[in-house]
Amino acid sequence: MDIVLIAIGCGVLAVLYGIVTAAQVLRAPAGDARMQDIAAAIQEGAKAYLGRQYRTIAIVGVIVAIVLWPTLGALSTVGFLIGAVLSGIAGYVGMLISVRANVRTAEAARGSLQGGLTMAFRSGAVTGMLVAGLGLLAIAGIFAYLIGPGGMDLSVEADRRHIVEALTALAFGASLISIFARLGGGIFTKAADVGADLVGKVEAGIPEDDPRNPAVIADNVGDNVGDCAGMAADLFETYVVTLGLTMVSIALLVPAAGNLLQLMALPLIVGGVCIVTSILGTYMVKLGKGGSIMGALYKGFWTTALLAIPAIWLATQMTLGDLSAPIGGAGFLEASTDALTTEGGPLPEAGLSFTGWDLFWCMMIGLAVTGLLVWITEYYTGTNYRPVKSIAKASVTGHGTNVIQGLAISLESTALPTLVIVVAVVAAYQLAGIIGVAFAATALLALAGMVVALDAYGPVTDNAGGIAEMAGLPDDVRGRTDALDAVGNTTKAVTKGYAIGSAALAALVLFGAYTTDLKAFFPELTVDFSLSNPYVIVGLLLGALLPYLFGAFGMTAVGRAAGSVVEDVREQFRSNPGLMAGTSRPDYARTVDIVTRAAIREMIIPSLLPVLAPIAIYFIVTAVAGQAQGFAALGAMLLGVIVSGLFVAISMTSGGGAWDNAKKYIEDGNYGGKGSEAHKAAVTGDTVGDPYKDTAGPAVNPMIKITNIVALLLLAALAGMG
Amino acid sequence: MDIVLIAIGCGVLAVLYGIVTAAQVLRAPAGDARMQDIAAAIQEGAKAYLGRQYRTIAIVGVIVAIVLWPTLGALSTVGFLIGAVLSGIAGYVGMLISVRANVRTAEAARGSLQGGLTMAFRSGAVTGMLVAGLGLLAIAGIFAYLIGPGGMDLSVEADRRHIVEALTALAFGASLISIFARLGGGIFTKAADVGADLVGKVEAGIPEDDPRNPAVIADNVGDNVGDCAGMAADLFETYVVTLGLTMVSIALLVPAAGNLLQLMALPLIVGGVCIVTSILGTYMVKLGKGGSIMGALYKGFWTTALLAIPAIWLATQMTLGDLSAPIGGAGFLEASTDALTTEGGPLPEAGLSFTGWDLFWCMMIGLAVTGLLVWITEYYTGTNYRPVKSIAKASVTGHGTNVIQGLAISLESTALPTLVIVVAVVAAYQLAGIIGVAFAATALLALAGMVVALDAYGPVTDNAGGIAEMAGLPDDVRGRTDALDAVGNTTKAVTKGYAIGSAALAALVLFGAYTTDLKAFFPELTVDFSLSNPYVIVGLLLGALLPYLFGAFGMTAVGRAAGSVVEDVREQFRSNPGLMAGTSRPDYARTVDIVTRAAIREMIIPSLLPVLAPIAIYFIVTAVAGQAQGFAALGAMLLGVIVSGLFVAISMTSGGGAWDNAKKYIEDGNYGGKGSEAHKAAVTGDTVGDPYKDTAGPAVNPMIKITNIVALLLLAALAGMG
Repeated sequence: MDIVLIAIGCGVLAVLYGIVTAAQVLRAPAGDARMQDIAAAIQEGAKAYLGRQYRTIAIVGVIVAIVLWPTLGALSTVGFLIGAVLSGIAGYVGMLISVRANVRTAEAARGSLQGGLTMAFRSGAVTGMLVAGLGLLAIAGIFAYLIGPGGMDLSVEADRRHIVEALTALAFGASLISIFARLGGGIFTKAADVGADLVGKVEAGIPEDDPRNPAVIADNVGDNVGDCAGMAADLFETYVVTLGLTMVSIALLVPAAGNLLQLMALPLIVGGVCIVTSILGTYMVKLGKGGSIMGALYKGFWTTALLAIPAIWLATQMTLGDLSAPIGGAGFLEASTDALTTEGGPLPEAGLSFTGWDLFWCMMIGLAVTGLLVWITEYYTGTNYRPVKSIAKASVTGHGTNVIQGLAISLESTALPTLVIVVAVVAAYQLAGIIGVAFAATALLALAGMVVALDAYGPVTDNAGGIAEMAGLPDDVRGRTDALDAVGNTTKAVTKGYAIGSAALAALVLFGAYTTDLKAFFPELTVDFSLSNPYVIVGLLLGALLPYLFGAFGMTAVGRAAGSVVEDVREQFRSNPGLMAGTSRPDYARTVDIVTRAAIREMIIPSLLPVLAPIAIYFIVTAVAGQAQGFAALGAMLLGVIVSGLFVAISMTSGGGAWDNAKKYIEDGNYGGKGSEAHKAAVTGDTVGDPYKDTAGPAVNPMIKITNIVALLLLAALAGMG
Repeated sequence: MDIVLIAIGCGVLAVLYGIVTAAQVLRAPAGDARMQDIAAAIQEGAKAYLGRQYRTIAIVGVIVAIVLWPTLGALSTVGFLIGAVLSGIAGYVGMLISVRANVRTAEAARGSLQGGLTMAFRSGAVTGMLVAGLGLLAIAGIFAYLIGPGGMDLSVEADRRHIVEALTALAFGASLISIFARLGGGIFTKAADVGADLVGKVEAGIPEDDPRNPAVIADNVGDNVGDCAGMAADLFETYVVTLGLTMVSIALLVPAAGNLLQLMALPLIVGGVCIVTSILGTYMVKLGKGGSIMGALYKGFWTTALLAIPAIWLATQMTLGDLSAPIGGAGFLEASTDALTTEGGPLPEAGLSFTGWDLFWCMMIGLAVTGLLVWITEYYTGTNYRPVKSIAKASVTGHGTNVIQGLAISLESTALPTLVIVVAVVAAYQLAGIIGVAFAATALLALAGMVVALDAYGPVTDNAGGIAEMAGLPDDVRGRTDALDAVGNTTKAVTKGYAIGSAALAALVLFGAYTTDLKAFFPELTVDFSLSNPYVIVGLLLGALLPYLFGAFGMTAVGRAAGSVVEDVREQFRSNPGLMAGTSRPDYARTVDIVTRAAIREMIIPSLLPVLAPIAIYFIVTAVAGQAQGFAALGAMLLGVIVSGLFVAISMTSGGGAWDNAKKYIEDGNYGGKGSEAHKAAVTGDTVGDPYKDTAGPAVNPMIKITNIVALLLLAALAGMG
């Protein structure tokens, strides 16, 4: 219990860091009246959108809660609500800071590059620490309450079951908010971006972020509600699901372990110590002699990651004591192998017994995966390497070849992450079975505070550039904000690869939880999960379809919403001739309102797809071929969605990042630079990549998780009814 | 045996039809000297390319044969060579007719639309009947030889095993040629097409098929070597694999059936009678009152499909006798269930016993799938429906939105085919287990003669249009060839959806063969194919990666080869100023030669990927975790490649077809017509769709099959060595 309290202390520390740093950011000078004027418009738009988005989500949330209460009980309903509300808070507060830091970053960039960097990164760090801190507080808090004042006893099966249900419901709440926030925010930001570019850059021939463009404020609002708030909700969900699920797996798979409490507390304390290393890391973000911004951000990241090694060792040591002693008491082996093989088939040789050292090495694997994913993402989206350069080169021969090469890179970019994940799964599994894989995922996610900080830095610098442009700040200031913004593309791509990578690692763990639950709830049912069962194939195929269908909805939604923006902007230019001359001001709020309504409308159907699909497949297959096959098809769907979703998500996010930076590479003066034919082709590629990388691709991550969690809840609900 | 001989007779009939129809085509007038001149250049280029391609493939084939002989024996080596040689002949002869029919179609179109249609379709029918006829002759011939003069006895297990090996090797030969031919031809045709468009239309501003463009002959050659010869090799492979595999499954899964010979002969005779209905269908291709070309082609298709219903009933009746009697003697149930459940888990309730009627209904399901896939493909790629219209509409707002909408449609287009396939798998499985699924796939493929005829019609009309343009035929003739060409986009997309759909149906059958072989060769080994085995997840993920990597290679290859074309054409324009003026003739052959070398070079590595990947995963996983897990990972890879490949292939082929026809829809006068900004955006989409639909997408089908067959051969080789 002490360990859990220490973890809670770390969570509180993260929130305190957030409050202190937010205060520092808010104390900084906010620029002249023109800048504040623009920033106010962005703030107002972002608040208006998020307010409406969360009100809509709240309606869905209340309906879900009303369904949950009678089917799964009060505890699960409360867990669901806590997850939902905290996810909303993480996103909303992140946005609140972000829309204030943008103008302050522009102002600080007047002074120096380091000033702008510090301001933007600190604001990102607030969001990052809130995500990790609130996530940790939620899980550790619920756990501490249940085993403390709640009077639950880990050695009693019914009590363990309650803890599992509460943690699963918490994850469900976080996931449900996150899919709406990711998708709604993603549609908003890209509809505004694409719409603004289409009429502004292409038709009217005015530069990006030109204040004469009525969609320019909507574009800047989008950065905050999509790339900041949406991303924060997504990573909050990933954090809660991964850590929570590791605990759930321990409770389900090794219930007879003698030190069960310590084992379940280990993910919490690992999350806790990594918050401390993340905080230390944030102070290392300083420009070196070379003045490389990416280098400065990497200094922070690598400090966090390297300090995490001894910190995790210490945490493991402190929690488990002798790291060489086998974990688990009598009955552990039986319970574990039972859960691992539902078929009565052979026992996998690995993973049946493990020590503290094994878990430590699994967590090191998780850290290594983080480092490798960061490196691979930079390779595929950075301007210094072959992929981006090849897209830039292909732009010389036109729009078509730019897109062909971009698609080729997006397909190719799936290979290395898949190999890294496959090797990690095998290695962790050899060390400690499914529990080992879960701990690898936990260590991966433990760095979330720092990773989110890097990501949330992006929209702030993007906005700062826009404000500098609109407020007519001097060219050297604009140069600095552009430099800060350029690395944002890579850091944003990194987070998405990181989130989807963790989903792939979590897939096996989630499936393990599903099969174990199935055995617990329906002991008399024998379910055949073998690949030779045709209902397994059916489940795999339908699961694999979900990311495609979801991607299609997302892309179409952006196209349609961008169309409304184009029409509105054209109308404003037509009815207000003073606009182009710069003598009258466009009605920014009207455009923001149009995008808001479009994004909210478009997010609902696709978000319900992963909630309803598992329920539908279960009931349909059960009606056709009986309950055992219904469960087999449902289980296979859970893996089908990750097997296909991993590739869809990585190809979209890496490909989109590469297209974006290929444009930037040309703008840096290569292949004719700005205004050349190659540049026009690169702008097309960037436009295509926008919904790929910021709408459809990243939303696949919460989609995968929600499908899995709905399946777990469905099992519990069916068991309760049966 | 009589039944097998009747099937052979039908195969001979198809070849005779091909010879007679080819003679009719060749007797038709071949136009004026200018037309013949152009046609000769195309013929020369196509022969030169295919000659080099087959020489290169022959080297690979001989190396493979040398490896096969000691590992799998003489019979398999001979089977492999027969499959390889016949596949090559089907493609080569198809090309020979196609390059002669193009100019005759242009000449016939001088007279009337019906004249041009008849000429183009007849030439396509030659290829179609050769594919089906040679395919049937190969399988039925080998089978007849083995059970006749070869003295094999179906009731002896060792003899059954020899038959299985010979049929598998035959399929391997066809598959290996097909992947090279599909990919090499696909790279050639799209590199020439994209390259010609980029310099011609975009840079020089001259229309498509302008004789001043040095790449124009290469473009026309590409239609013949890619869309005709490559496609023919692909469908030959699909035909042989599907029918052969159905026979293999019967031999493996129900070896104790009393009427085993009849049962194994049934796929052959079904193929045979459908050749007859296909021939009858070809005579129904006539323009109606409305003058709809698609309607005329559909008349042929629907005649074939509807006549197939009584024909299949008759064939089943004739072969099996009493359709209500349960099939199989004593021991059938045991053998079947044994094979179906390798886990010792529960027995699926369905598929344990079936009658002739069950098989008949399974084949009806196969026919229904064909009809539905045709309809769905037309919906997604036809100019009359929402998808194509939505892409055309999105072109108005620019290149970017065209591509976004095209990608959205390509993602969406996977949904309905997947649902159709899933329902078909479930229904066929409920009726007659895996054997039922195999028969559904057989009936699907039995219509291949007609489907290939429709497809091979496409390149002929495409070329006819090019020749009409280059030879300066009157506008009304060009109008007729354009009308004939427009429907070619849809018929070409139909075949690709059809081929990949059959691959999905075959997946379960192939996996069944794999598990049964595994049990036969390694009876002491218990392999866990359950989804809770992490090596199964690893296999699924790595299998799912293959189509992505393969797609990336294909797209990059087209981009790179098109780049060489662009450079060559630019150089020709530069060094020969008389070109643009039309006073001197470009060096067509030089461009053809450049594309030839590029395509051959680029096809090798990606084609080896699916051959080597299964071998690599088996040996690596075996080294890490033992042989049982090696086989589990390999088996999972086979399903991973179809679970992901189905979506990659459908999205690419449907999306590409939709982009192409969106351009045509605009050229028909919508959204500003030719030359408008919308048209330029649509040309970009078409360029992107080209390698999607004609290079990367269709090659996924043979890739899936070859991965599976290599796995089967690997098993046999390991068993032989062990």
